[in-house]
Amino acid sequence: MRRDSVLYRSIAVVGATGAVGTLIRNLLEERSFPLERIKFVASQRSAGTKLMFAGREVTVEPLEPKVFDDVDLAIASTPDDVAEAFIPQAVQQGTVVIDESGRWRMDPRVPLVIPEVNPEAIAGNEGIIASPNCSTTQMVLALKPLHDAARLRRVIVSTYQATSGAGLAGSRDLQRGTQAHLDSADYDYETFTHPIAFNVIPQIGSEKHQGYTSEEMKMVYETLKIFGDDSIRVCPTCVRVPVSNCHSESILVETERKLSPAEARELFAATPGIVVDDDLEAAQYPMPIHCHGRDEVFIGRIREDLSSDHGLAFWCVSDNLRKGAATNAVQIAELLVRQTTQHVGS
Amino acid sequence: MRRDSVLYRSIAVVGATGAVGTLIRNLLEERSFPLERIKFVASQRSAGTKLMFAGREVTVEPLEPKVFDDVDLAIASTPDDVAEAFIPQAVQQGTVVIDESGRWRMDPRVPLVIPEVNPEAIAGNEGIIASPNCSTTQMVLALKPLHDAARLRRVIVSTYQATSGAGLAGSRDLQRGTQAHLDSADYDYETFTHPIAFNVIPQIGSEKHQGYTSEEMKMVYETLKIFGDDSIRVCPTCVRVPVSNCHSESILVETERKLSPAEARELFAATPGIVVDDDLEAAQYPMPIHCHGRDEVFIGRIREDLSSDHGLAFWCVSDNLRKGAATNAVQIAELLVRQTTQHVGS
Repeated sequence: MRRDSVLYRSIAVVGATGAVGTLIRNLLEERSFPLERIKFVASQRSAGTKLMFAGREVTVEPLEPKVFDDVDLAIASTPDDVAEAFIPQAVQQGTVVIDESGRWRMDPRVPLVIPEVNPEAIAGNEGIIASPNCSTTQMVLALKPLHDAARLRRVIVSTYQATSGAGLAGSRDLQRGTQAHLDSADYDYETFTHPIAFNVIPQIGSEKHQGYTSEEMKMVYETLKIFGDDSIRVCPTCVRVPVSNCHSESILVETERKLSPAEARELFAATPGIVVDDDLEAAQYPMPIHCHGRDEVFIGRIREDLSSDHGLAFWCVSDNLRKGAATNAVQIAELLVRQTTQHVGS
Repeated sequence: MRRDSVLYRSIAVVGATGAVGTLIRNLLEERSFPLERIKFVASQRSAGTKLMFAGREVTVEPLEPKVFDDVDLAIASTPDDVAEAFIPQAVQQGTVVIDESGRWRMDPRVPLVIPEVNPEAIAGNEGIIASPNCSTTQMVLALKPLHDAARLRRVIVSTYQATSGAGLAGSRDLQRGTQAHLDSADYDYETFTHPIAFNVIPQIGSEKHQGYTSEEMKMVYETLKIFGDDSIRVCPTCVRVPVSNCHSESILVETERKLSPAEARELFAATPGIVVDDDLEAAQYPMPIHCHGRDEVFIGRIREDLSSDHGLAFWCVSDNLRKGAATNAVQIAELLVRQTTQHVGS
């Protein structure tokens, strides 16, 4: 079923016209991803659209089983129900799928991968590799060096999540809802249950577990799975804020061995994919407006927890469409290619 | 020096033309505060302005020592440096001052009062009674029933603070900066170091203590002072969000005796000044757009802490200009009048 020894020459981007799909296309081109053929796949509605890739025009194909006939590797960003329907069939046809959706992440057969954190996990894949939820990815990448150095016991996180996390419609809602509010006009939101303009909404996703939302429980379950450690206890509060792009997180950790802010700063700075931006006196810390369009996870406000003897507090911002989604998926694809190339070569 | 036995017949509102001063004027009128004479005092720049009060025109007077000659009680909302300069002199002239500024809050001679929490503290005043910082007031009112029932050990709070906390200029900045951003135009912010439109800024105030800001340390010091309990440990992260009015707070507490969400909900509901709005399945929880113009502290998302065995998480929103400032100050004034009236009557 799986083409273990093939190189991934024929690539498909599924959900190619969405917010994340657009970035995946750009990243594959910018990073000169090694490929021979590329397909852009989307819903029937977007099929026929012509998109440019590396100077050539590519016509978007509808998401049908036969589209995967000659596809080695698909990078997919679709709603959960779409991912549930098409992925098993694509895998059966021999396609490896890197999936951005939430549908397969917690499946025990599916590795959930952040390349800087648990690259080894992709080895065990059975055709699906999942990319974590955006709010989880940036947090877990930040937590990784702390966990390695001092063992995490507890994580308390409050998020400040951008509307781009709700897709293109989310971004439209913020823009149009804000303009309407400034004009004292009415606006019917497409994606948000409550107005997001000049408001914060302490709910992302639906009620899932004991008063926690689905978005919050993703931050719990996915963190444990990626670290392969069920002993870490995570308490999240996920909040939508009127920011176009980039999620921010206020994080407090308790570690088995006490970490000083100075040691944590060094650990963060030495981790690939993390940029430390931390000088409160100079009013320097990560903010959405500075992190937009960047692939790294930015960390600042690193300080001792005033409420415990083994805690550390910090602030973490990342472009949720990039490292939180598109970049992480493309990095998984690159990792897969690198490992397969090494395998074929040996 | 103090006129212990007088009724407070002659009232002054200092900073009467500011965001909080305007609300104080409205509240005194709406709540039919018992007074015989009222003065509105402001900076030289605003002096001469005519304002309505209870159907009469009142001319704003400049802030000069002699303005307090015949004032029994002043409610003041000014910057710290102004409060430092004028209050001792006004007190020496026999005026009791309820001060909204940060200048006198931590002075051991000055009671720091939330009427629902520590009304008894006003008895010891020597002429100044301080009203806490807005982010502290709503949190401490929320914490009060939990502390009484189960004793607080630890509080971890991340705030989502509105621009109205930075005064009228803060509100202007948000409105104009947002419109400029939508128009792809430039805008020079008056009060914010970084653009607040479609952004979050993880700094309120200046660097104060070990990487914490002045706003954060207010939440630490003032909480301990109001509860009169130095054993509570507080770790705050204060963040400005692009919301016009009403501060939101994601709060996690650890208590000596474990509190279930059901018990906490009952405790909150039984506390005057608190409104519980908590039904996640029905997408009901406090949000700035609903709490604007209200005097209560609103609590929702009440749930067990997933990261400890004796923790509780919840979400708290309040109108920072009202309960966070004007309402609390007027309530202190009402308490003072009530106690004095009782004293005179007995």
